[in-house]
This record gives sequence, structure tokens and C-alpha cells, in this order.
Amino acid sequence: MSETILISAEEMDRTFYEVLLKHHFDDRKARTCAEIFTETSVDGVYTHGVNRFSVFIELVEKKFINPRAEPSLKKAIGGLEQWDGHLGPGILNALHATGRAMDLANEHGIGCVALANTNHWMRGGSYGWKAAKAGFIFIGWSNTVANMPAWNAMDLRLGNNPLVIALPFKNEAIVLDMAMSQLSYGALEKAAAAKETLDVYGGYNSTGELSKDATAILESKRMLPIGYWKGAGLSLLLDLVATILSSGKSVHEISKHEVEHGLSQVFIAIDISKLDLTAIKLVVDRIIEDYHESIPVDQSKHVLYPGERVLATRKKNLDDGIPVNEVVWEKIKNL
Amino acid sequence: MSETILISAEEMDRTFYEVLLKHHFDDRKARTCAEIFTETSVDGVYTHGVNRFSVFIELVEKKFINPRAEPSLKKAIGGLEQWDGHLGPGILNALHATGRAMDLANEHGIGCVALANTNHWMRGGSYGWKAAKAGFIFIGWSNTVANMPAWNAMDLRLGNNPLVIALPFKNEAIVLDMAMSQLSYGALEKAAAAKETLDVYGGYNSTGELSKDATAILESKRMLPIGYWKGAGLSLLLDLVATILSSGKSVHEISKHEVEHGLSQVFIAIDISKLDLTAIKLVVDRIIEDYHESIPVDQSKHVLYPGERVLATRKKNLDDGIPVNEVVWEKIKNL
Repeated sequence: MSETILISAEEMDRTFYEVLLKHHFDDRKARTCAEIFTETSVDGVYTHGVNRFSVFIELVEKKFINPRAEPSLKKAIGGLEQWDGHLGPGILNALHATGRAMDLANEHGIGCVALANTNHWMRGGSYGWKAAKAGFIFIGWSNTVANMPAWNAMDLRLGNNPLVIALPFKNEAIVLDMAMSQLSYGALEKAAAAKETLDVYGGYNSTGELSKDATAILESKRMLPIGYWKGAGLSLLLDLVATILSSGKSVHEISKHEVEHGLSQVFIAIDISKLDLTAIKLVVDRIIEDYHESIPVDQSKHVLYPGERVLATRKKNLDDGIPVNEVVWEKIKNL
Repeated sequence: MSETILISAEEMDRTFYEVLLKHHFDDRKARTCAEIFTETSVDGVYTHGVNRFSVFIELVEKKFINPRAEPSLKKAIGGLEQWDGHLGPGILNALHATGRAMDLANEHGIGCVALANTNHWMRGGSYGWKAAKAGFIFIGWSNTVANMPAWNAMDLRLGNNPLVIALPFKNEAIVLDMAMSQLSYGALEKAAAAKETLDVYGGYNSTGELSKDATAILESKRMLPIGYWKGAGLSLLLDLVATILSSGKSVHEISKHEVEHGLSQVFIAIDISKLDLTAIKLVVDRIIEDYHESIPVDQSKHVLYPGERVLATRKKNLDDGIPVNEVVWEKIKNL
């Protein structure tokens, strides 16, 4: 059993940066990717931060991700733009698209960038945090490889297509970052390793029954959409809209390849700076105040808004260091 | 036990129109509301069509809905507009907002109308169908009175805030119209009346346990958000964004009143007419073709996309007449 060690954000960032430079990222790109992977880890989303970094480098080595690619504009229609990500790093393409959506929102009130041929954006919430902290409302989503069945179906035709909605709140942000599957692979793997029964149905077993057995679900590979038919429907629509707007690849097309790459994504920013910000602040404060007044079922658990837990994790990880499995860290240092 | 009778769409439309005229709707408004209530019923969404009509008129009589109100522009920021619905009929306000969002999308590529002080829009899908059949992608949602608890909470602080996403498909549309609650009140009431156990958890019983007993859920009034914490989070964010963008009332504010009124809604339209429509048609066809190739769990049930079932219901109801409970119909005729 390997140990968990604590790595400072500075050391993690520097280590990522140096590895990226070795793998043909130029200085700016290496700095930006290292920063996002580090921030994601500081925020406690290890599955899309430090624990994903080696896989990311592997995909660069296998040329599924091109570190030299630059996104290019395909079509501009006022506040709506289509970009091609040319299979560049998902983080860099998504940051660019978020920035463009904010520029378009500045100009048109609302801006939408649809991005084709990009790669996994890692933590989708990263772009929500960026836009919200810059004062925008953000709505964005990505398609993925097929990993869920349609409602009443056996085989995998739907992606778990993560959806992000974010808005500014008290110098920070409220950030919802949710995949359409009830649980992540990470959560299933953790429960399977600990031989724990899931609290809620997480997918189907190999005979097609709803299951709380993580091992059985990982074997069948059939994840459960949130809300059964509802999440399945939402997943389909998110894929359709992303594919149409970007003129990119659908879940179906992406799933023809062995490795997930060439995704389609949507980034919508809305400029609220010209609205009555004083009134908005009051109303948002009041909504969250009311929400926090919820009577908890379990007194030991606070009722938290999406993104709220991150603030405490961020502080702890910045103060104490980021917990990393020592084997994972050794591997990264040797990439 | 009262009988179900069949009413032709023409008769239903004329009956609604005449009742509306009696209740201070001018000719144009009466025609439009009658048309939407009829279309909704033809499409099989009786809970928001013929079965809701009497309640709608009651709210007009009680002055929660003002049939003479006209929406007015509060603020225009390029493709983003704020409108005040002045507590007019939700259908008329929502149609106006959908039309404005499409106009803004024509001009800016993407348009967003946020509407404050409006009323229940009946079937949210109506606006998705309108926009999609006019060639737009549509994303819209409404807040509601509080009817769901936050995750890990006992009391009701969240609305089931319906979300609509629609796009053009084969001269018709693919329309997702989903509330954030796993089941509607209508579905719970139907199961309770038939003493049927629900297929999935629909809410909580009065001791706070997840339940498939519709009667117990109706007693506790605690509906279950889709995907537990995920639907709860999405509900909160939809309310926050609708409230901010419209400068309208939040679920919390709306829930202070005895009767649900004065809602906040968002209507986003995206103009895809300047994109490559031939390519889009091919890619959408291929996504749906693949989706339809899903292997069904139950061979007797087809795997359908959101909105697909409506087409058959629409045809049947136009051919045979719309099924209505005779007591419901008698009441409407005497309004």
C-alpha cells in the first residue's frame, strides 16, 4: 500500500511545467497547462488534476493531443463563433474559447463559442471559475465518448457530457460542474476498491438490473444517467447542440475511435456588468442565505451550494500541501 | 366514475377562445392562448393543456394573472434583453420573449431574453417547438415555487424549475422539456389514485426516507430532484441565473406568496441558419439513427428521443379527437 504525501502547489506547478516543456509545450502553454492542473488539484478535484496528468502526457506522446496546435476561427456570426481546436490540449482550447465567449459577451451582451476537434478539458469547472471571477455568467458543456445507455437501452450510445454553470459570488463563484452520469468512474473505482455498497444506484449490472455494486457496474460499463430518462435526454440534447454549433464530432463519431479525442464543446458567457449589480448582489446573497437555512436531514452535514466545499479544500491544500499518492508523484517526476 | 370523451381540436380551441373573451382577454390574446392550450392538449400534455385551463381562468379571476398586461422592455444590452411581464398570462409573455430571443439571434447570432414578473408558461416545450420549427436552437427555463429540498435537507427551498432544450429536426423538432423533479405532481397523483408503486424513487416520505409510495410523497410534499444532489444543484443554478438575468423574483421570493405567480424565466435562441445546414442535417440524422439503433432492454419498448412520442399522439388526437374527462370539459364550458 503506497503512502499519501503532501506536495506544495509551487512544487506541483513547477514539476508539471518542467514535464510539459520536455513534451514539446512552448513556455506559455506549459505555464498555462501546469497552472490549471495545479489549480484543479488544489481545489481537490484530483481525478482531473494530479491523478490525470500522466494520462494527459501519455496522450501527447501518442499524438492524440498536439501541444503545438492553435485554435482557429472557422466562422463568426455576431456573438456566435465556431472554432476548430485542431486536437490541441483541451485545457488551452477551452481557456481560449472561454476568453472569446467573454469578449463576445462584452460586445453583444451574450457570446457563444462552439469548439470542434478539441480534447478533454479536464475539470470543466475551471472555465466556470475563470468566467465567473471575471464577472460573467457561464454556461458550457462538452461531449465525451459513449459511456451510458439511452433509457430502456442496453448498449452505450450517450456520453456523460459534463455541464458547467457558474456565476460570480462574493469575490468567488458558485460553480456547478456535473456530468450526466449519477457517479463518476472515479467514485465507482473508489467504492469498488473499498468494497463499499453505493448509497444510490450508480449503473447496471451485467444482467441489466440497476445496481449499487460498483464492481458490477465497472464490469458492465453501463453508467446510470441522473434521473434515469431525464439525464439520458439531457445528455442527448447537449451532444446534439454541441455537435451542431461546432460542426464537430458527435458522441457517436467520437466513440468510433479507441481513444477519446476530437470532442465538441460549447462556451456561453453573459455579461452582467451592465445590469444593476447592487441589486443582483442582494438577491444572490438572499437566495444563498435562504438555501443555507435548509433544515439538514443529518445535522453533521451542512447544506452546501455547488462549489462551496472547494473553498475550504483550496485553503487547506494551499496551507498544508496537496495530498498525492507517492507512486503517482514519482511517476510524474519521471515523465 | 366520470367518462372520457373525445373533443376535436377545433371545438376545444373555439371553447377556450370564447371563455377567454369572457374573461377580459382581447381577441388576439384569446386566440393565442386558446391555440397554445389546444396545441398542448393535442400533443398529449393534458396536465398543462385542457386539464389546467380551469385553474388558469381561476387565477385570472383572482387577479394573479392580468389578461390586459403587456410585457415591456426594461433594458437592452445588444443580444441580451430584460423584460417585465407585468404579471400577464405566462403563455403570452413567454411567446413574446421567445420571439424577441429569435429576433436578437437573427441580429447577433445568439439572443437572450430574461423575463421577470411573469406567470406559469404552461408547457415549456411549446416555446422550444416554436423556436426549433422556425430554425433556431432554443434553451429556456423557468423558476417555480419551492417544491423540492436541497440535498441533505428536509424542507422545501428549491423549485423544480423546468428546462427546455430544442432544435430543428426533419421539419419537426427534438424537444427536451424536463422539470428538475424526478416525477411530476401529475404522475404522483395518478399513481396514488391507482394505488401503484412507483418504478423509481419519486420523493421522500414524512420520516425523510426515499419512497416509491406516491401517497406518502404527496403527503410529505418532498419531491426528489433528478440525480439527487445533481438535480438539486442544477435547480439552484437555474434559479440564480434566471433571477440575476431578469432582475426578477427568486424561488425563495415566489414561495412567500400563497399562490405561485411572478416567475422569472430565460429564453436563449441561437441562429443556425448561417451555419452549414446540409452538414448539420446529416450529422443530426446520423446521431438519431445511431440512438435508434440502441438495443432495447424491453423489446416491446422503443428507444425514443425527447419529443418523438409527441408526433404519434398529435396525429391520433387530431384524427380522433382529444381525450378529456367529461367533468373537466363541462366545467370549462361553464367558465
